[in-house]
Amino acid sequence: MTETAQFLTAAADLLGPKGLTTDPAEMAPWLTDWRGRFTGRALALASPADTAEVAALVKLCAAHGVPIVPQGGNSGMSGGATPDEVGNAVVLSLRRMAAIRKVDVQTRTATCEAGVILQVLHEAAEREGMRFPLSLGGKGSATVGGLISTNAGGTQVLRHGSMRALVLGLEAVLADGSVFNQLVPLKKDNRGFDLKQLLIGSEGTIGIVTAATLKLEPAVAARAVLWAGVDSLETARALLLHAEGVAGGALEGFEVMPRHSLQAVLSHLPDARAPLQGDHAWHVLIELVADAAGAEALPAMAEALLVSAFEQGLVEDATIAASEAQAEAFWLLRESIAPAERALGPAVQHDISVAVEKMPEFVAHAVPTIEAAFPGTTAVGFGHLGDGNIHFHVLAPAATADGPAWQAGEGKTISRMVHDLVTDWGGSISAEHGIGQLKRDELARLGDPVAMGMLRAVKQALDPQGLLNPGKLV
Amino acid sequence: MTETAQFLTAAADLLGPKGLTTDPAEMAPWLTDWRGRFTGRALALASPADTAEVAALVKLCAAHGVPIVPQGGNSGMSGGATPDEVGNAVVLSLRRMAAIRKVDVQTRTATCEAGVILQVLHEAAEREGMRFPLSLGGKGSATVGGLISTNAGGTQVLRHGSMRALVLGLEAVLADGSVFNQLVPLKKDNRGFDLKQLLIGSEGTIGIVTAATLKLEPAVAARAVLWAGVDSLETARALLLHAEGVAGGALEGFEVMPRHSLQAVLSHLPDARAPLQGDHAWHVLIELVADAAGAEALPAMAEALLVSAFEQGLVEDATIAASEAQAEAFWLLRESIAPAERALGPAVQHDISVAVEKMPEFVAHAVPTIEAAFPGTTAVGFGHLGDGNIHFHVLAPAATADGPAWQAGEGKTISRMVHDLVTDWGGSISAEHGIGQLKRDELARLGDPVAMGMLRAVKQALDPQGLLNPGKLV
Repeated sequence: MTETAQFLTAAADLLGPKGLTTDPAEMAPWLTDWRGRFTGRALALASPADTAEVAALVKLCAAHGVPIVPQGGNSGMSGGATPDEVGNAVVLSLRRMAAIRKVDVQTRTATCEAGVILQVLHEAAEREGMRFPLSLGGKGSATVGGLISTNAGGTQVLRHGSMRALVLGLEAVLADGSVFNQLVPLKKDNRGFDLKQLLIGSEGTIGIVTAATLKLEPAVAARAVLWAGVDSLETARALLLHAEGVAGGALEGFEVMPRHSLQAVLSHLPDARAPLQGDHAWHVLIELVADAAGAEALPAMAEALLVSAFEQGLVEDATIAASEAQAEAFWLLRESIAPAERALGPAVQHDISVAVEKMPEFVAHAVPTIEAAFPGTTAVGFGHLGDGNIHFHVLAPAATADGPAWQAGEGKTISRMVHDLVTDWGGSISAEHGIGQLKRDELARLGDPVAMGMLRAVKQALDPQGLLNPGKLV
Repeated sequence: MTETAQFLTAAADLLGPKGLTTDPAEMAPWLTDWRGRFTGRALALASPADTAEVAALVKLCAAHGVPIVPQGGNSGMSGGATPDEVGNAVVLSLRRMAAIRKVDVQTRTATCEAGVILQVLHEAAEREGMRFPLSLGGKGSATVGGLISTNAGGTQVLRHGSMRALVLGLEAVLADGSVFNQLVPLKKDNRGFDLKQLLIGSEGTIGIVTAATLKLEPAVAARAVLWAGVDSLETARALLLHAEGVAGGALEGFEVMPRHSLQAVLSHLPDARAPLQGDHAWHVLIELVADAAGAEALPAMAEALLVSAFEQGLVEDATIAASEAQAEAFWLLRESIAPAERALGPAVQHDISVAVEKMPEFVAHAVPTIEAAFPGTTAVGFGHLGDGNIHFHVLAPAATADGPAWQAGEGKTISRMVHDLVTDWGGSISAEHGIGQLKRDELARLGDPVAMGMLRAVKQALDPQGLLNPGKLV
């Protein structure tokens, strides 16, 4: 028997028929990322039932030198959960580990396994009058383990932080198969380096998240969703500061989009209507929320925000959603930007951040710079202004016939220039989507050499065989 | 010339007369920690003027194999900044690097060097109508670099988190003399492991903090300080949950002390008065604060909290400080517990945490357990109930003649038992004071072997020569 066959036999014995497959048809959906950008091969798809099985499998892989590609919902943006072409790795799916062990209202925590799908967690929290304050487009497939491993963001980071801020306790299997267990949350613990935070956002390269204790918040009892037209991103930023002053902790979301994005959405969604009559260079979506105690005061707060914003000349026009249905319609416009922009033709996308206060200036500089350097392209930035994070899309010239060829050619050159610009401005080439395999070369090219040296040293120290998610991140 | 002499000559050339001394008298104050528990020796005291000098000195130390003990205000609780007896190390003081580079009201940040004293930072923020929301007893000596390196806590962690939550950007010199620079704060950055958080709380064992960008909050415009007498720690915890419900984000502090501690303070401070007439098993100090926008509503909120707490039978008696002077007097009682307990005689102290909701049960179990095991001792827990963190003091029997001998003998046995108990309860033997040299052996004895393995691997990877603060933490 070859070593590979020996490994597969041992893994099959360990995990049983439900836990291991080498059937190409069963494996196929998990060997390509959801956007179809990356495809790889694998020895097998392993689906352990619990942490002990994960640990035993990782030990087995370590003994046989088999690489491991951890995978949650397979809905990441950077190919971080897709194996490479070599085909010598095991895809380790956490999806079978989908138990919510506990939702505790008093301590405002949920303890759940890595394979719990975000939407399922949302619903479990809601049943107890609570909420988990992180959401994103892929909530129907994204898993808790994947969200933690990629330090996922979304539209509520402004108030609640990214995943990193919501993980109170963590369990993970390390490269040697040992189990790191800090599931019991301690508010204060100064016993050395913050290993929990080290594991969060490490994209499965130094450990495999198996369970977590997550922070919950009281359910939202009322929300007010505002839509404003403003003359510039600079004004949008002033409106953000104003909204923070008026609404304080009630300010839950602050999203921006340029005229171009709104028009793309209106073309893309036949039933959609523009929230405002007139034409505006930039549009702002603001969400205020309150729990039961603050619900009564919320409409007056939203009204006061609107009136004072008009008085101070911050908005050209603005409105408050008159119903929950209209609030949903406003959010649908925001959430449809990415597909609407995609429908316009081939493009290259960038998930970037700079210091919040520099973002207006950055966009004002980057858009004309890119469009001048690559005639015919259209550059569009939209998203999370409150976090200094925008999604910066550059559309191919209208006449582009072969989209994939353009993306692989000029598109790649454009991406390098965008990343150069962001780096010059002290920003990040990955604000919330992670590095995965998509941006690994760009990180190696542009990352601060000192930080890269630390990354590599820590990776080498915690995964000396290099078996955890090879080819990703570092 | 010996290698040591060569090193000292090169260091003197590098740092100049202001930057290096080997004079025993000049060095003496910095070779013993402020409580006089640890004393060491050193080759020299280095006081670089800027980050470049720190980096050059660390490079020089690496070349000559000279250990480095970074030091801020020398007011730590665990001997983390005191050199060992060997005398081959350089004490690297950051105190000369005391510039506050910028206080930015719009972005609510302060950028300052490592040697800035906490109180100086407080005052600089106040001059701009802002505040830095972390404070502790040693604020007149503790430096920003030391606070970051130890992930300091204090009485405002409940609302604002410990130092870890307040560091937005960081600069540090690594073991090879390279400079890690993430001073520009990015709200979102997913370029790999969170190296900034890895450095925070690492006690100078993998890097030397040289500067930071810190989070500011709007100045406090009003505060309400309440004092309540309750029948048990369990009830105090119920009162905490109630206060969180009523006051939400206005709840800034929630401190508890048993009857014993209050009596100790009243004996210790001749002018102090008990806030309440009657006798209560436990006392609670609650602080609510508001910025300008919420100042007007604060008195009514405090009143409502008090009335509803009475109605629900949570408090036996309670009062609101009628003036700022009375508020200060309430806080003085809390801040005097440690010296007052010390004045009662020899004791051993423990800075411990368990999950917040388990703390009442833990104290109810630990106090009689310790007092039964060590007849004549008195066990007292007080402090940050809202963080699940208490300071657990065990006083020697009244007849104890030789305090230091008792501390080194029975005291040590007691500490081991307290740490065993905390570990059994899933808690931490160091909630906020760090490990340093004080608890290094206990961490090695009780730390989870998997976590300890990670700590050692990361330390080895980032400081392969073992020159950064040897003998501390790991």
